[in-house]
Amino acid sequence: MPELAQPIVRLIDEFAKLPGIGRKSAERLAYYVLRVKTEEALALSDAIRAVKLNVHQCKNCYNLSEEDYCPICQDKSRNERQICVVEQPQDLIALENTGVYHGLYHVLQGRLSPLDKTGPEDLTIAPLIQRVERLIKQSSSPNDPDVELIMATNPTVEGDATAGHIVNLLNGKKVKISRLARGIALGAMVEFTNREVLSDAFNERRIVE
Amino acid sequence: MPELAQPIVRLIDEFAKLPGIGRKSAERLAYYVLRVKTEEALALSDAIRAVKLNVHQCKNCYNLSEEDYCPICQDKSRNERQICVVEQPQDLIALENTGVYHGLYHVLQGRLSPLDKTGPEDLTIAPLIQRVERLIKQSSSPNDPDVELIMATNPTVEGDATAGHIVNLLNGKKVKISRLARGIALGAMVEFTNREVLSDAFNERRIVE
Repeated sequence: MPELAQPIVRLIDEFAKLPGIGRKSAERLAYYVLRVKTEEALALSDAIRAVKLNVHQCKNCYNLSEEDYCPICQDKSRNERQICVVEQPQDLIALENTGVYHGLYHVLQGRLSPLDKTGPEDLTIAPLIQRVERLIKQSSSPNDPDVELIMATNPTVEGDATAGHIVNLLNGKKVKISRLARGIALGAMVEFTNREVLSDAFNERRIVE
Repeated sequence: MPELAQPIVRLIDEFAKLPGIGRKSAERLAYYVLRVKTEEALALSDAIRAVKLNVHQCKNCYNLSEEDYCPICQDKSRNERQICVVEQPQDLIALENTGVYHGLYHVLQGRLSPLDKTGPEDLTIAPLIQRVERLIKQSSSPNDPDVELIMATNPTVEGDATAGHIVNLLNGKKVKISRLARGIALGAMVEFTNREVLSDAFNERRIVE
């Protein structure tokens, strides 16, 4: 396209790098940017810049934060002896939206994935182990330190492997480890639930008291 | 989502304003921006800024251009007595990609659309008429000025109405007016071509010599 002004070509190229945005969509977005008021376009440009320059990882839990420590870690009313382990910040938000959990989190920044060449050293597993060890050491009753790790990695092969790896590393340490319950989802129908999910639900059945 | 850092919320909001980007896609894009290297994210931010600050409308044909006049209008090898009228810059690029046309263009910046409240004054129709009149006046043979206007608005009700309006305004002026041929598209099948297209093709049939 030799007739297209260079900045437009560059913008189309940049939009096309975004996930789920193909060439044609990128062109449509670029022409949209050309069409809207300058303030509106610059608002998007500035928002991208601001997010990269102002948002960092929380030094405790690796959640996204504007400050050194995220609002959850700073919240003294939360139980710091409970750590819910999630793969990514979006998972944390989904859990927060339920309102049922009042402990802290640990964001792994991914999952073990040999295909994507993501190993334990690419995740925040080492700091997690240190966090748990520190909590155990700080406890007033070292024999029953009352530390709980709740595994909330995705119920996939990779998520399970990641949780399994962490459990292995904590082997022998005085920490209670749980994971999210598996079963049929609320509102789902047994008839249309697949075999794997039904097996999980069957194996994890609970006594009705 | 009280736990989301403010710059992230803002970025999601800005992405969600883009056409075809819903809330969920906007979140995905925002997290992508957070994940990629800072240089990559800033490249997108800068590209948006550059396009708004450096790209303007060509003073002759209203094509997008980095300079006062676009590369096509600056190209002295092109026939400036032919003006192809298109709705938007993307149409110009599609026509340029065919390589069959060597005249200049005029970008209307839209089409007449009562529903969108787009009237003749919102388009670059007045400058187009002035351009045509200037070409006629500058001609060495005022009785046969050899000026051609090729209507390449979309073959829709609104595109046709826009072309019709321009043709009316030029009524009585010594200018040849043509429009893109209509018919069945190359590679299409008569069996699956709809009634309106087939009617067009039938009415515009050409003698085989």
